[in-house]
Amino acid sequence: MSSGPNDQALRRRARAVLPGGMYGHESTRLLPASFPQFFARAQGAYLWDVDGNRYLDLMCAYGPNLLGYGDERVAAAAQRQAALGDTMTGPSGLIVDLAEALVSMVSHADWAMFCKNGTDATTMAMTIARAQTGRRRILVAEHSYHGSAPWCTPVPTGVVPEERAFITSYTYNDIASLEAAVAAAGDDLAGVFATPFKHDSFEDQALADAAYARRARELCDASGAMLIVDDVRAGFRLARDCSWEQLGVRPDLSAWGKSFANGHPISAVLGSDSCRQGASGIYATGSFWFSAVPMAAAVETLRILRETDYLERIVVLGERLRSGLARASSSHGFRLRQTGPVQMPQVLFDDDPDMRIGFAWAEEMLARGVYVHPWHNMFVCAAMTDDDIDAAVQAADEAFAALRLRLDSLVPHPIVAQIMSTH
Amino acid sequence: MSSGPNDQALRRRARAVLPGGMYGHESTRLLPASFPQFFARAQGAYLWDVDGNRYLDLMCAYGPNLLGYGDERVAAAAQRQAALGDTMTGPSGLIVDLAEALVSMVSHADWAMFCKNGTDATTMAMTIARAQTGRRRILVAEHSYHGSAPWCTPVPTGVVPEERAFITSYTYNDIASLEAAVAAAGDDLAGVFATPFKHDSFEDQALADAAYARRARELCDASGAMLIVDDVRAGFRLARDCSWEQLGVRPDLSAWGKSFANGHPISAVLGSDSCRQGASGIYATGSFWFSAVPMAAAVETLRILRETDYLERIVVLGERLRSGLARASSSHGFRLRQTGPVQMPQVLFDDDPDMRIGFAWAEEMLARGVYVHPWHNMFVCAAMTDDDIDAAVQAADEAFAALRLRLDSLVPHPIVAQIMSTH
Repeated sequence: MSSGPNDQALRRRARAVLPGGMYGHESTRLLPASFPQFFARAQGAYLWDVDGNRYLDLMCAYGPNLLGYGDERVAAAAQRQAALGDTMTGPSGLIVDLAEALVSMVSHADWAMFCKNGTDATTMAMTIARAQTGRRRILVAEHSYHGSAPWCTPVPTGVVPEERAFITSYTYNDIASLEAAVAAAGDDLAGVFATPFKHDSFEDQALADAAYARRARELCDASGAMLIVDDVRAGFRLARDCSWEQLGVRPDLSAWGKSFANGHPISAVLGSDSCRQGASGIYATGSFWFSAVPMAAAVETLRILRETDYLERIVVLGERLRSGLARASSSHGFRLRQTGPVQMPQVLFDDDPDMRIGFAWAEEMLARGVYVHPWHNMFVCAAMTDDDIDAAVQAADEAFAALRLRLDSLVPHPIVAQIMSTH
Repeated sequence: MSSGPNDQALRRRARAVLPGGMYGHESTRLLPASFPQFFARAQGAYLWDVDGNRYLDLMCAYGPNLLGYGDERVAAAAQRQAALGDTMTGPSGLIVDLAEALVSMVSHADWAMFCKNGTDATTMAMTIARAQTGRRRILVAEHSYHGSAPWCTPVPTGVVPEERAFITSYTYNDIASLEAAVAAAGDDLAGVFATPFKHDSFEDQALADAAYARRARELCDASGAMLIVDDVRAGFRLARDCSWEQLGVRPDLSAWGKSFANGHPISAVLGSDSCRQGASGIYATGSFWFSAVPMAAAVETLRILRETDYLERIVVLGERLRSGLARASSSHGFRLRQTGPVQMPQVLFDDDPDMRIGFAWAEEMLARGVYVHPWHNMFVCAAMTDDDIDAAVQAADEAFAALRLRLDSLVPHPIVAQIMSTH
């Protein structure tokens, strides 16, 4: 089964003018063939492809959609600012309002710097850690995604090994591994990166072990290195604060992006006074980093985050989805592994080493109007309702039944099978 | 003289929550003290600071403002798309329309990839050149700005030298220097970067010597390396094509940003079939790279570029400014060096080794409602009129007169004086 005729026509044109037909994390190259590549419209919790099919969107733009696509309050704030000015010869006062809002919400933060990509924020955090400490070594957990710059891209094609010099990996949630990496770094340790929980692609998620998080803080304190929480993907979906605040652990630096302007393009590095001097010394900038419209959208998004129960609601919605999927799958004899926070669910199948079952289920869900991802964590947004979740669970029930009938005839996606065989 | 009270109040708040009070290229740290840091509004060719002062803006947001701030045609296209969807779980069909538009306009281009920062585009071009050739060495002209990533930032604080491994500099417009660098790279030469003309800060600009540009192409052809034109700053201000097309030289890759969506956040790498394979192999992505609103703005901006005389007009306006400034300065006994294309003017003073004269003139211009920059090239936009330019020249005449009276009491900006002493 392939995507619709309009999608196919766009794909044909795209093959001529985009390398490989599409690039980056929104390419459907590693998704089932029926998944549309191109979308026409999005509203609230829903997405329409270019062939007019509507989906409840459990990917939420890979995170940015936190309050609902086109949230009217955020859209109004953006539009008001657009009438005044966006990209100008200097920032508007909103950059100060926004920095103050984030510093007031994120306990460890004393200051903020804004950029565009999550990768900008993680790269700046790394550079600030080095500038602050005068050291070189950076620790990152194996398989953790921190962006697509040469130092961190998961596919290092075209990257020379020197660009990743002084980047060492350790095992997430493994205190002994972290201690060994810190010891090996000696007095050259500049910073330790950690995602707020383990949200690697193609595998089960895992919450952060509080003892591991505390030990990371202790080790950084002991060596004078900077602890960096990469909250780009999870930021404001786990807490109205840095995600590790729940564990009682405060980093020196945190990286933010995706959701804090509800889909408007802006990211941020937040930092403590422990590295303000380092942050003041680096040079990082971009043509659109000071644009006022995304800052207006962010200020309004943060107000909504503070003043509404969006967080409690996405947790309730996520729990409803998780328990519903558990019921539906077991009633059809499938064993799901649902991991990570309920509002950022990863759904994998037991006994599915090459993901052929997960792919077929995603196809069946898509055919029933629910967009799920077979190997990347998903996202719940505050525009979803109980009825949306119930409809998704109903679709899942039908999808499991249909999957049961097809089970013997499934074939794996060739590239994904290869990835899984080496994972 | 300092900026206005609202600007000063914002600066005080900013010092608490932004490292150093401000960061990046829009910081006023290296500008005269009277220059406002914060702006309230922009329309057409004009900019209003937070104290209500209006300026004819010869910086054009450091480039993005090409057609005029808030151009109604572009704003309408952006708003139409915003009502449909912006950052979604996949791109809209606009990514194909936009790639086709750029490929149709830029002679060397067979394909396009979109990103957010100019730095994204230059970094991807570097990585593509390495992926395509399987080689490592990258040549860049000394002092040329290609962005603020670790491999290219002009202030390498917090950068480890290894991140710049295999980056070698040569002298712009100097064929012997380029030949020597190419020879030294031997069979490890992946790519040669060139800005379309020499537009380095703090010094005179220089147009590209056609013989140098042709020789760069020949050397790349002979060695199988990729020629990369960094058109981020100058793109579509010199030509409705890659800037070096005017010289008859076609690169393999070009980097674009700033202006092609008239201030909406989007940048691009364009490439020839000579490196389509390399481009298909790299992994680069960002949370907002596929957002539809900036693509709608870009498609409309490009239509306007194709269908109007914007380019011929900014040249006429730039010539009017240059000749007017030449007249006004010499009538007051000042010798200006006005260099580079007239639509991207650099204005420096003779006999001004620490820039104290240029700074004072910029202050006098600002006081008369014209925002000029003392050491960075400026930008003309298509929303300017003959009357705007005449008013700027009139302001300049008065500014030169006022400057003449202050000449003996000027003191240099301490950091700029230091930069100039080592430049």
